[in-house]
Amino acid sequence: MPIYLSTNNEGKKVLDKIFNPKSIAVIGAPREEGKVGYAIMKNLMVFKEQNKERKIYPINPKYEEVFGLKCYKSVLDVENNIDLAVIAIPSKFVPMALEECGKKGIKGAIIITAGFSEVGNNKLEEELKEIAKKYNIRIIGPNCLGIINMHNKLNASFSKEYFKEGTVAFISQSGAILTAILDISPLINVGFSKIVSTGNKMDIQESDLMEYLANDDNTSVIVMYIEGLKDKKFIESAKKLSKTKPIIILKSGKSEKGKKAVSSHTGSLAGDNQIYDAVFKKSNVIEAETFEELVNMMHIFSTQPPMKSNNIGIITNAGGFGVLATDSCEKYNLNVVEFEENTKTTLKKYLPSTSSISNPLDLIGDATTERYKNAMAILKEDKNIDGLLIILTPQEMTKPLEVAEIIGQLNKEIDKPVVASFVGGKEVKGAKSYMRKMGVPSYISPENGVDALSSLYKYENIKNNEENYELYNNIKQELLNIKNNPERKNIIDNLFDNPNEYNAKEFLKINGISVPKKYLATTVEEAKQYASKLNNKVVLKISSPNILHKSDAGCVIINPKDIKTAFNEIMENGRKFLNANAPNGVIDGVLVEELLEGTEIIIGGKKDNIFGGVVMVGLGGIFVEVLKDVAFAISPISKNYGSSILKELKSYKILEGARGQLKRDIDYIINTMIRLDILMDIYPNIKEIDINPLFVKEEGKGGFAGDALIIVDK
Amino acid sequence: MPIYLSTNNEGKKVLDKIFNPKSIAVIGAPREEGKVGYAIMKNLMVFKEQNKERKIYPINPKYEEVFGLKCYKSVLDVENNIDLAVIAIPSKFVPMALEECGKKGIKGAIIITAGFSEVGNNKLEEELKEIAKKYNIRIIGPNCLGIINMHNKLNASFSKEYFKEGTVAFISQSGAILTAILDISPLINVGFSKIVSTGNKMDIQESDLMEYLANDDNTSVIVMYIEGLKDKKFIESAKKLSKTKPIIILKSGKSEKGKKAVSSHTGSLAGDNQIYDAVFKKSNVIEAETFEELVNMMHIFSTQPPMKSNNIGIITNAGGFGVLATDSCEKYNLNVVEFEENTKTTLKKYLPSTSSISNPLDLIGDATTERYKNAMAILKEDKNIDGLLIILTPQEMTKPLEVAEIIGQLNKEIDKPVVASFVGGKEVKGAKSYMRKMGVPSYISPENGVDALSSLYKYENIKNNEENYELYNNIKQELLNIKNNPERKNIIDNLFDNPNEYNAKEFLKINGISVPKKYLATTVEEAKQYASKLNNKVVLKISSPNILHKSDAGCVIINPKDIKTAFNEIMENGRKFLNANAPNGVIDGVLVEELLEGTEIIIGGKKDNIFGGVVMVGLGGIFVEVLKDVAFAISPISKNYGSSILKELKSYKILEGARGQLKRDIDYIINTMIRLDILMDIYPNIKEIDINPLFVKEEGKGGFAGDALIIVDK
Repeated sequence: MPIYLSTNNEGKKVLDKIFNPKSIAVIGAPREEGKVGYAIMKNLMVFKEQNKERKIYPINPKYEEVFGLKCYKSVLDVENNIDLAVIAIPSKFVPMALEECGKKGIKGAIIITAGFSEVGNNKLEEELKEIAKKYNIRIIGPNCLGIINMHNKLNASFSKEYFKEGTVAFISQSGAILTAILDISPLINVGFSKIVSTGNKMDIQESDLMEYLANDDNTSVIVMYIEGLKDKKFIESAKKLSKTKPIIILKSGKSEKGKKAVSSHTGSLAGDNQIYDAVFKKSNVIEAETFEELVNMMHIFSTQPPMKSNNIGIITNAGGFGVLATDSCEKYNLNVVEFEENTKTTLKKYLPSTSSISNPLDLIGDATTERYKNAMAILKEDKNIDGLLIILTPQEMTKPLEVAEIIGQLNKEIDKPVVASFVGGKEVKGAKSYMRKMGVPSYISPENGVDALSSLYKYENIKNNEENYELYNNIKQELLNIKNNPERKNIIDNLFDNPNEYNAKEFLKINGISVPKKYLATTVEEAKQYASKLNNKVVLKISSPNILHKSDAGCVIINPKDIKTAFNEIMENGRKFLNANAPNGVIDGVLVEELLEGTEIIIGGKKDNIFGGVVMVGLGGIFVEVLKDVAFAISPISKNYGSSILKELKSYKILEGARGQLKRDIDYIINTMIRLDILMDIYPNIKEIDINPLFVKEEGKGGFAGDALIIVDK
Repeated sequence: MPIYLSTNNEGKKVLDKIFNPKSIAVIGAPREEGKVGYAIMKNLMVFKEQNKERKIYPINPKYEEVFGLKCYKSVLDVENNIDLAVIAIPSKFVPMALEECGKKGIKGAIIITAGFSEVGNNKLEEELKEIAKKYNIRIIGPNCLGIINMHNKLNASFSKEYFKEGTVAFISQSGAILTAILDISPLINVGFSKIVSTGNKMDIQESDLMEYLANDDNTSVIVMYIEGLKDKKFIESAKKLSKTKPIIILKSGKSEKGKKAVSSHTGSLAGDNQIYDAVFKKSNVIEAETFEELVNMMHIFSTQPPMKSNNIGIITNAGGFGVLATDSCEKYNLNVVEFEENTKTTLKKYLPSTSSISNPLDLIGDATTERYKNAMAILKEDKNIDGLLIILTPQEMTKPLEVAEIIGQLNKEIDKPVVASFVGGKEVKGAKSYMRKMGVPSYISPENGVDALSSLYKYENIKNNEENYELYNNIKQELLNIKNNPERKNIIDNLFDNPNEYNAKEFLKINGISVPKKYLATTVEEAKQYASKLNNKVVLKISSPNILHKSDAGCVIINPKDIKTAFNEIMENGRKFLNANAPNGVIDGVLVEELLEGTEIIIGGKKDNIFGGVVMVGLGGIFVEVLKDVAFAISPISKNYGSSILKELKSYKILEGARGQLKRDIDYIINTMIRLDILMDIYPNIKEIDINPLFVKEEGKGGFAGDALIIVDK
């Protein structure tokens, strides 16, 4: 478990020292080229001149001097204070070195060394954690490349090169992917502010870094590669940060096979795909689907202003590419908007009569530089358009470089995103590199341009997603009062003593989730009496803590014609089931329940090891079982968040009243999701809850839990 | 409508002459640079020396001589035979020039000139068609770039450059996309056999070209960009060709917005997205989703051998990229297969102890050339693996160029596809261009490599898709016999006279689609009698040719408690509806029908202008209305094809018996699809058929058409 120092100010100050150290000890600074410590020393020395006040202390018992600097046997021998220790010695020596750092009062360390939890050596990593806790040391790594702070000319990593200064903070759990991104960055002319290889993340997590970066004026975009998260705090930190800075994430290990590979790779337990999707949604981050998309997004976010609406304007000299771009706009939810009237009138004056004046604007195969220039000048003024894609293919009359220059100029003058797709090879090469130099992303094909623009808009659309916890807090107070009400103690105790359906439903009932009227019958005669009380519209079910899936065991009969036959059948099937599966199990009797009607919903809750309460919702029956049409919400569930999760269901339209049906009570479903969420929170012993089905009636009329299963930790 | 000359041998010979002309007339050969005709003359002249026997006749009344050749006023003035005319004069003069070509006996022409149907000038294009028909001239274009036959050094186009000879035939409806592809091709070292710009396709269609290319030894892959098809023959030709040569297609205009843009672009009516998907599936072609994917597929198909199964092996020096590749394997349906035992044992000897010997094979960050070499040598022998992806990121110990050389060698020795993804910039640039030179596709990111490999496998998987028409033919004979049976004439005539539900169902019944027992009641008394015959389990419905959507009009009552009340209500609602919508409409009475049960299926048929009969199938109710879960089959429907279409449904599992239900009679559904298909074929007056619902019972028990609507052309 992470140490979470970042929540206090002391912890934050340490992070600032790690990125801007006045003095650095390199523990394991060798003289031999090829060693990791050597590369780190070399990288630190490169900008020595620009950082005269920054002290570097090589630590290595073998030498008196390294890189012309005095070398110490231990950090304890250094006279002055040390802000940051970079540790690159064999893993078995790391605990001792860290202990010495603690004694020296060093509060920040980067452990480059590998050979800890990622190879199953959890014990050694635990040792480090103990030491870190004892001395309050904040740690990046172990098993990482190190960090780079571009604006402070700090390269505390063994990355070979130094890169362009820029606004992207790149955080990667994989050193190799970090290296690949850094090597690609000059191709797209993207620069960095901070670069962090997080490694095993034994202490410092993405959440810590995000909190630090929120106040880093040099950073305007955060790009991350993640294999697995270790703390729920990610959500809160990302949400806060994304209000002002977009966060772009590539998460690997989202397939079943992929998961396996992650486990054998970094020892990080990849969470369930759907839970991560839910977590990222709740965090207001933008997820890239592929590495290429990550690079494309990094490119556009680091160069272009926000896209205020999803209205795009497209200029092309190739009708076919205009159509392909339009096709992808549908896919990526951009709107190929109609031009303003004024735009159309003006365009007519400047375009050949055969041009059809509509969006995408086809300048036709013989488009000259002049025609592109006019088109851009006119569309620039169109208030309907909030982003521009300019497509060019090599044609006889078209001069790519000239058009690129105009685009470069437009990009300077306009406060809207501009991207290009110059499709070709040799003919457009110069134009493309010119545009990259000018900070205009140019994509291999128009679809990629649309995709990138759509991610800009997506950010604009989600950055201010606020959750309103009023309802959540009210319900929480209500349920806490119930928990603390001595009159309710009995029902609550019953649940934890014997979590059968009857007790589960009683528990739900006192917690505001209606359940059908029901009676526990132990004899046929009782069953008949109760059924008659309920006008003989009833469901009969076994009541036993040992029979969880009652239907499968033949222990549920809906609307029986003859109560006696049904009662006996259920009891017999129940006994058979117990004989086969739980010989010591007990049967409390048969529940006689009023027969309900309504749209069948399934609501379930479980506790994720990392993210805590997760509530699942879907329509019952085929929707869940055949179509897997379910959605997940991460605790805490606000009303608007719950509503947005519910809307993810493909079958949502049914709740809204498709096929001439009345609208269902959607608020009631959300309310119930919130109640399950809070119940799992305030009763830590509840591990899982299933309400299946929840019968939901028409709008305003609520519903009932038709069946309930609560699994408790005893 | 296309002229379809290609079906006869004469037509095919003409295509051969167009691609390999012994003599060419360039109608509109100017002396002024910058004109299209000039570019064509220049291109034709480039290889004059290699084609001494090929005669070129410039045609232009203004000159005596062009490019040093004698210039003629008209083709009629040329003494010798002419195989091919290339026409590049203003549109209004084209008919006259074509007429002259006809008189001269020229059988093949390329009309470069624009200004025909693509700008709405259909009349002028019709004129050309008449002339072409009169003289039996085969025409490419109008409104096109021309053609190139690389292996015959023929450049009858105004494309600026000449490209590498290779095995790809590229056919494009857009000149600009053709130019872009040609410009990109040197970057990926792809060469061409034939290049065709099809333009408006007034005569020669993709189907003609595919039939020609089937016998072209220089072509092994066909790549196409399509905006819209004009003939159903595409399916048959593609299916035949794809048995031996893969066909890769990018189709634009698949979105609603995209469609609009196509119409305004080439005047080609883009068909419905779903119909095109069905057409491509039936044609056994491989569809690219984006332009980038088209380029990537072209690259892999033109360089790599077939992928015999979906079992992939992955080698990487970056665990993270291995995981991302694995994630995409799930998406693209490739199997990250387990290595053979022998492979594992051998790998252990050559890899560091910390390597986990599994697929993807992680050579770890310090992978040397040697380690890559050993890994490849070992995996090369693994019989479980049918395709290899080799990932590399720039790392201290890794020498990209050396690894690339080993991959190049492996690619020569192995009869399985090999692709690479060297992720980076400067560090891997040389290695990437080396691999391209050696015919190993190298992709920007591992996901693209997986995608490309999966398309190879997809081809292997579909190329031998054969349809077995035994059932189709049997049913067709059966239905033709019924059509020709004088005893059935009455029922058939009734349908076309008055296509109400009653007559539609009688028609379906004689054609082997069961319908519920039913009686037409004109009085309450009759209705009561009939209901009692059917044990009072009945549905009452209006019978009127003027009320198509009976439920919406309140004219259907299921299982009524009181027949009299129901009868009167239906009649009253029917009269109200007619008053409002069809004052002259008639009501025949009320149908009293036996009440059916079964899984509700919707089957419909309509006639597409281009592709003829299209049959739609889906599960009824919410599946169609809320989830739009329907699939389309293109006529003719064989049993195995119908079955594969049905399996496209997300709800297919329900038919197979999900949720403890019995399996439904799937054969009956397919049989009914085939019947609808044939009925639309043998009764040309039937425009549309809807059976909604078709009640389908358990396996082997058939079903009934619950409601039927047949729309006829009178």
